[in-house]
Amino acid sequence: MAHIKLPDGVPGVRSLAMFRPDTGKHLYDLVQVLLRGQSPLSPAERELIASHVSAGNNCRFCTDSHAAAARELYGEMSRIVDCAIHGGDTSLLTEKMRALLVIAGKVRENGKKVRPEHIEAARNAGANDRDIHDTVLIAATFSMFNRYVDGLATLTPTDDAIYAEMGKRLAIQGYVPPEPSGV
Amino acid sequence: MAHIKLPDGVPGVRSLAMFRPDTGKHLYDLVQVLLRGQSPLSPAERELIASHVSAGNNCRFCTDSHAAAARELYGEMSRIVDCAIHGGDTSLLTEKMRALLVIAGKVRENGKKVRPEHIEAARNAGANDRDIHDTVLIAATFSMFNRYVDGLATLTPTDDAIYAEMGKRLAIQGYVPPEPSGV
Repeated sequence: MAHIKLPDGVPGVRSLAMFRPDTGKHLYDLVQVLLRGQSPLSPAERELIASHVSAGNNCRFCTDSHAAAARELYGEMSRIVDCAIHGGDTSLLTEKMRALLVIAGKVRENGKKVRPEHIEAARNAGANDRDIHDTVLIAATFSMFNRYVDGLATLTPTDDAIYAEMGKRLAIQGYVPPEPSGV
Repeated sequence: MAHIKLPDGVPGVRSLAMFRPDTGKHLYDLVQVLLRGQSPLSPAERELIASHVSAGNNCRFCTDSHAAAARELYGEMSRIVDCAIHGGDTSLLTEKMRALLVIAGKVRENGKKVRPEHIEAARNAGANDRDIHDTVLIAATFSMFNRYVDGLATLTPTDDAIYAEMGKRLAIQGYVPPEPSGV
């Protein structure tokens, strides 16, 4: 049960955006531009960073919803997503993505853990300033969403089919805030 | 030196909002409504939560700038701020704020660390759903800003007078994104 009274049956951050729409709107606007706006990283790669960080923070709602979105966006290459979340065969990842996921993991722990050698490794693998910036901001943003969702104990679906459906919606429509009424 | 090329001489999140204005705008809009919009918590109390979380994450830029804003807003009661950041005499804090700072500290570690007994203690001290929600979102949001600012090694002023000036501006003007050109 959530720590505060939220709309019945609405999971995760969606229920929170309905509880407080004025902050919810800016959170949805931020994640839409960050994961779907202009970036040298593809939407699939950005969803992968989001799910990697969320997995590290043990936030099931964010991990599974963004992993599902990443799978949709990677299409035939969706096996990459499981590597990024659960470890395993990282040879499917580009060298650049491997280096950026290291940076994302450090940001997840604490921003100060990002060291010049992590940045240098990413640059050597072809990352530019925007790749690095966007990776850090995505990792920081999901360090926020994970805490927001779990800190209020929001509803977390346990049925994989619900996340698969969510992933389809996020891949096609992106991040659209709910109506405050819950429609 | 910052990990990416940022505008010279511009500290912290301001330099990042100039580097990427489309995300910067939403971050400033979020923090403006969260710290200055309608809430049962006063702007001073909200700045206090922001600086408490930032101190826990060892992010000097965010700690000192929001502590300075909180001092401005508390006015004669500004000694409260030092208690919230450095521990010490917590008798200056209301029982409700003490309970909410405990919740904020748990969110800072991981959202899952917020337990029903923390929520109950806050309710017993007079906190309602909005107090609890806003505390969790502020703690989550500063867990983001701390990581964003430190993860890219942005410029952190070391002169207390600069933070005092910043605190005055934030108390009076609130959070206004910089012009992309840096004006």
